[in-house]
Amino acid sequence: MSVTAPLGFRAAGVAAGIKSGGARDLALIVNDGPSRAAAGVFTANRVQAAPVLWSRQVLTGGRVHAVVLNSGGANACTGPLGFQDTHATAEKVAAALGDSAGEIAVCSTGLIGERLPMDALLAGVDLAVSQVSRDGGLAAADAIRTTDTVSKISFKRGEGGYMVGGMAKGAGMLAPGLATMLCVITTDADLPAEQLDATLREATRLTFDRLDTDGCMSTNDTVLLLASGASGVTPDPAEFGRLVQGVCADLARQLLIDAEGATKAIAVEVVGAASEDDALAVARAVCRSNLLKCAIHGEDPNWGRVLSAVGTTAAAFEPDRINVAINGVWICRGGAAGDDRAKVDLRPRDVTITIDLSAGPHSATVHTTDLTAAYVHENSAYSS
Amino acid sequence: MSVTAPLGFRAAGVAAGIKSGGARDLALIVNDGPSRAAAGVFTANRVQAAPVLWSRQVLTGGRVHAVVLNSGGANACTGPLGFQDTHATAEKVAAALGDSAGEIAVCSTGLIGERLPMDALLAGVDLAVSQVSRDGGLAAADAIRTTDTVSKISFKRGEGGYMVGGMAKGAGMLAPGLATMLCVITTDADLPAEQLDATLREATRLTFDRLDTDGCMSTNDTVLLLASGASGVTPDPAEFGRLVQGVCADLARQLLIDAEGATKAIAVEVVGAASEDDALAVARAVCRSNLLKCAIHGEDPNWGRVLSAVGTTAAAFEPDRINVAINGVWICRGGAAGDDRAKVDLRPRDVTITIDLSAGPHSATVHTTDLTAAYVHENSAYSS
Repeated sequence: MSVTAPLGFRAAGVAAGIKSGGARDLALIVNDGPSRAAAGVFTANRVQAAPVLWSRQVLTGGRVHAVVLNSGGANACTGPLGFQDTHATAEKVAAALGDSAGEIAVCSTGLIGERLPMDALLAGVDLAVSQVSRDGGLAAADAIRTTDTVSKISFKRGEGGYMVGGMAKGAGMLAPGLATMLCVITTDADLPAEQLDATLREATRLTFDRLDTDGCMSTNDTVLLLASGASGVTPDPAEFGRLVQGVCADLARQLLIDAEGATKAIAVEVVGAASEDDALAVARAVCRSNLLKCAIHGEDPNWGRVLSAVGTTAAAFEPDRINVAINGVWICRGGAAGDDRAKVDLRPRDVTITIDLSAGPHSATVHTTDLTAAYVHENSAYSS
Repeated sequence: MSVTAPLGFRAAGVAAGIKSGGARDLALIVNDGPSRAAAGVFTANRVQAAPVLWSRQVLTGGRVHAVVLNSGGANACTGPLGFQDTHATAEKVAAALGDSAGEIAVCSTGLIGERLPMDALLAGVDLAVSQVSRDGGLAAADAIRTTDTVSKISFKRGEGGYMVGGMAKGAGMLAPGLATMLCVITTDADLPAEQLDATLREATRLTFDRLDTDGCMSTNDTVLLLASGASGVTPDPAEFGRLVQGVCADLARQLLIDAEGATKAIAVEVVGAASEDDALAVARAVCRSNLLKCAIHGEDPNWGRVLSAVGTTAAAFEPDRINVAINGVWICRGGAAGDDRAKVDLRPRDVTITIDLSAGPHSATVHTTDLTAAYVHENSAYSS
């Protein structure tokens, strides 16, 4: 399952003692090949954690032998010593695998600004190396959780029998430029790094990048795609793209459903835009309106808050030609009140807000959640 | 007091029945001159309420005889009929004053998307006209409240005996491009409309525009400055500017303190920026971080969330040269952990977050509040 669904991958998830309480906190994924082709996308935040700086460099080579991931600490804003910690972690994995550190990717997640407990972490690497197996995918997915209430995994089978599998973590700080998320996708298809890169960028652009639960962008976001080639199948590029995008979409949906404190999964769908960029700008602005997110939490179809968010963008539209539907009821037509708002049923968990800009043929959808007292509670006490 | 502190102004605040429950909901301010010079600034939102479209047009003439303001309904997103309602309101005031509607400004605040109850509103205008007096400033300030828990008023005396007075409302949707706020400032100084305009723009740029409680920009924001000239004093422009800015700053502080659900008043002060625009961009990004606002609510000096917000901007900085102080304790130095976070006392209501970008001599401060469960509750139930 998960990252070990494809042939050629072994994984482990162990309790290294980085987190207090004895939960799993260190995951290792090893690509046994024959290929080690890999691609990665990283946070657009200009403040980047040490493991992001390290792994970005590793991925320029297009090859990854193993990925080591820890929860319990982000190793972000930790200065040169934090970078040395990441380097030492990669060296430790490399030594255990009889390889050089240049093909070892590192990911971290947790609190920003604190050094990792390196004694515990390096001992955990030894333990993980001793436990990696073809059955380790679920344990690995479990080990990268922070405030996630469940593990997130997915896998799909392609034509000719190759597989794509994945695991992810992330429950808050989910915003464009990826989320506070770590995600590793594996495949036993045989493809060069360049094609993995193009496939991954397109898939993340249409999935993780269209998730915005709280407008906050993390310092640690990383999505990796590793190919072992062990199935011997070289798939059709379009089919492979659909599979990778499918796994990403599946994982993105799981992140959304598990977002901190959320009780609603809100799809903001913009149609009739003059360009895809316009559609995205409008959808993102609406997803970031705290007032709207509160209203949806209260099951109040407050389309006025939709329009006031649309009005903050530079997208092409005329205010008196905008139509808004909530769960299929067009309660705003031509920029003014439309159908009876009492007809809108906001009791289901899934809510769709459709905004028709009447300005062109383009569209885009961004997903967010409601804003709740539980979100406030969880994020008021996270580090204390 | 308030808008009637300067000579030449009468005001009233009455219960017209626009709000349910019998609270005051209609205010009228009349400028008896001899001058009627006036200036206005309005929301930057592209979706603009009917009264904003109307009053913007009135202000192009640089003269205002009276301002009529209502709470209980924003008259935004109400289409051509909503605009007719604003026009009819102005005509009603004009007829009562024996004037034309072209010098009557109109402001509305409340729910977006619903027509105003015009019978009640127009009868309220008659009542207000019958009650306007030199003592009516407080009643007018009371009548424009929505979720405001208190009236906001201010006044200052200039050299030579002229006065500047003001009233404002606004408790949520406070963000750049003004807040969901209505504000009327009056003076009995004798100054031309062009000078009032320049003074008002500079004052709002440095006060109301630097308030961002929830990142949400309203459709109705209006700040008006009316001069009666009744004192006969033509003040020094610099002193007049300081007075108007002082009244705006005083009112802005009152808005911040009364922001929906807030328990902390947070000043985000950016220093060492390469430009004032950079400083503002960074301050605004930090003010909009829900995660940081939750942390401050929980009295958690989470500087990692400050840095992750700074990293989303395009401002000039090197991540490893950023310093952050919370309430005077430099807990982040050189982009990594600095002084002991246990030294930060976050119990006072006022919190100052200082961000030193180490990139130049410029600075700016933006004010926000914490994010609380009370904010969520208030905004989940506002229209239901």
